[in-house]
Amino acid sequence: MSKKRKFGFIGTGAWSSALANVLSKNGYDVILYGVDQKEIEDIKRGYNTKYFNSRAFNNPENIYATDSLSELVSNSNTYVLGVPSKLVKSVLKQLQKELKYKKVDLINLSKGLEPNSETLFSEFIAKKFKKNLKNLATFIGPSFAVEVFNEEATIINVVGENHMYNRELQRAFNNAYFRLEPEQNIKGAELFAALKNVLAIGMGMVSAKYQSVNTHSAMLTIGTQEILKVLDFLHPNPDNVKVALSFSGIGDIFLTCSSTKSRNFSFGQQINEFGMKKALELNNKTVEGVETAKTLQKILKKHPLDVPFLNNIIAILFSGKSPFKILDFIQTNNAS
Amino acid sequence: MSKKRKFGFIGTGAWSSALANVLSKNGYDVILYGVDQKEIEDIKRGYNTKYFNSRAFNNPENIYATDSLSELVSNSNTYVLGVPSKLVKSVLKQLQKELKYKKVDLINLSKGLEPNSETLFSEFIAKKFKKNLKNLATFIGPSFAVEVFNEEATIINVVGENHMYNRELQRAFNNAYFRLEPEQNIKGAELFAALKNVLAIGMGMVSAKYQSVNTHSAMLTIGTQEILKVLDFLHPNPDNVKVALSFSGIGDIFLTCSSTKSRNFSFGQQINEFGMKKALELNNKTVEGVETAKTLQKILKKHPLDVPFLNNIIAILFSGKSPFKILDFIQTNNAS
Repeated sequence: MSKKRKFGFIGTGAWSSALANVLSKNGYDVILYGVDQKEIEDIKRGYNTKYFNSRAFNNPENIYATDSLSELVSNSNTYVLGVPSKLVKSVLKQLQKELKYKKVDLINLSKGLEPNSETLFSEFIAKKFKKNLKNLATFIGPSFAVEVFNEEATIINVVGENHMYNRELQRAFNNAYFRLEPEQNIKGAELFAALKNVLAIGMGMVSAKYQSVNTHSAMLTIGTQEILKVLDFLHPNPDNVKVALSFSGIGDIFLTCSSTKSRNFSFGQQINEFGMKKALELNNKTVEGVETAKTLQKILKKHPLDVPFLNNIIAILFSGKSPFKILDFIQTNNAS
Repeated sequence: MSKKRKFGFIGTGAWSSALANVLSKNGYDVILYGVDQKEIEDIKRGYNTKYFNSRAFNNPENIYATDSLSELVSNSNTYVLGVPSKLVKSVLKQLQKELKYKKVDLINLSKGLEPNSETLFSEFIAKKFKKNLKNLATFIGPSFAVEVFNEEATIINVVGENHMYNRELQRAFNNAYFRLEPEQNIKGAELFAALKNVLAIGMGMVSAKYQSVNTHSAMLTIGTQEILKVLDFLHPNPDNVKVALSFSGIGDIFLTCSSTKSRNFSFGQQINEFGMKKALELNNKTVEGVETAKTLQKILKKHPLDVPFLNNIIAILFSGKSPFKILDFIQTNNAS
């Protein structure tokens, strides 16, 4: 191992595996920690068939998997939090037990709001992991994991306050098909990442009811403007527009709000097609946008903002408003 | 006729007809001027079958068509320039002959750069039509004409410096499915409208070669950022980001850069699929983005900007670069 940084992935999911594959391609040794013995054996053989079928890791000789967090900790110095959002809290505790007083670098892959505390992940981690934290960065941007694993050209933001750490991660991850672009407006990028999931549900509803490209384009524009309005209220910063125009902003909106591969988008479609009850039954996993919409609802109750599209999405999700009325706010006849 | 404003459309094309239909729905009498006797008879009967098949105008009793510009002029006070871009110059001359010294309101439907002078249409019209011009506004935003004719929800910008005139046009046009949003950064909106056609050619090339949604989202983001960079150079204005996030900005980019209904986008696809020569043969009409790319090339030669995506599009269009190298600028391996 000639590379200084040793990356340990906590979690063996699709996104962890795709990023591990980027690093192994770049010549880094990578270790993944998981709890499913079958998956671990699979990865050791050079595959993650659960997500990527028969496509093998690039340079599988660089990839190792273990069910021992101790083993991961003693073999790496940069930890990638790749577990589902709701497990971040407990994983941080386990990690702290192993690390004791050692300070380490983290990469966070969770976006939006930590489900228990309703704070942004960067804030939550900074607080909970304080005594062990050297540097923290979050990866945000338009990226379906399977496409990264398949080495499709992908560009996302590395979001963190430490410019040098961002640069170091760029040097480790960037290659011919994967690129990190630094972004220092942390709250801006994270809030955009969270709120765009609410918009994606709304865009799913719109696209299920309206075929018109004019309509889709208008609603994506309005949705982006409304997210920026919420962001400017929660976190006033002249750089918010820059985030809106970044990979974490419109990039992720292009991706999430137009593809049925996005769970939030397809959930919105299902609400229109089958009704709310059936749509909820069809989604046994948590739909992130619904959780974020709940938090947004609380915020907008205390501080009403002029965001009729987001308000309609919330009203449809939680107040029994008909999804067919998603665009009623633009359909008031106001001709002279 | 109870309405004060009397709209006269110069041109009987799809966009003129779709907007005439909006006004007739809103109770306005509308007159269209054209040169094709068959089309004029068609419109008089309540149809524009060339573009909209058997779908009739809403309230056809409000629609009248003529081949006499004099008749149009004496029956309207607000003139909509709905002819192809390259005819704007000659139409303005004809109109001036009829108007003599009368000052009138104009709505311009041409976007981007006037082909002969390479200046923005708003500047070109303001200069050429000075002695007859009371107010000028331009309509820019995501709108396929046929969808507007079919009464699909559509929102675009009314771009002009006179706030009151913009408001008046809003009152005339806005209804349950069509909405104008005022925008006063005229150059910003017009430059975005022009440059997005160059991007659309590039996105066509990208989408022909890459299926990945990650890649499309990344390139749309980079393209938008590069357009903003050109805009900031040509017309420095803190409101440029606002235009970038408006219907004339990302709205039109969503529409133009993702739909084969856009001629620029499908031209880009054809270049990749059949080569430049065949792609040019397939397009007997002018591809607007190619003209704008020529002008952009001249600008970038004099003032090099860091816009590698736009530069690649230009190099492919005019310097024989292979369209398969469209993304070579992100595919340089810069891992450590």
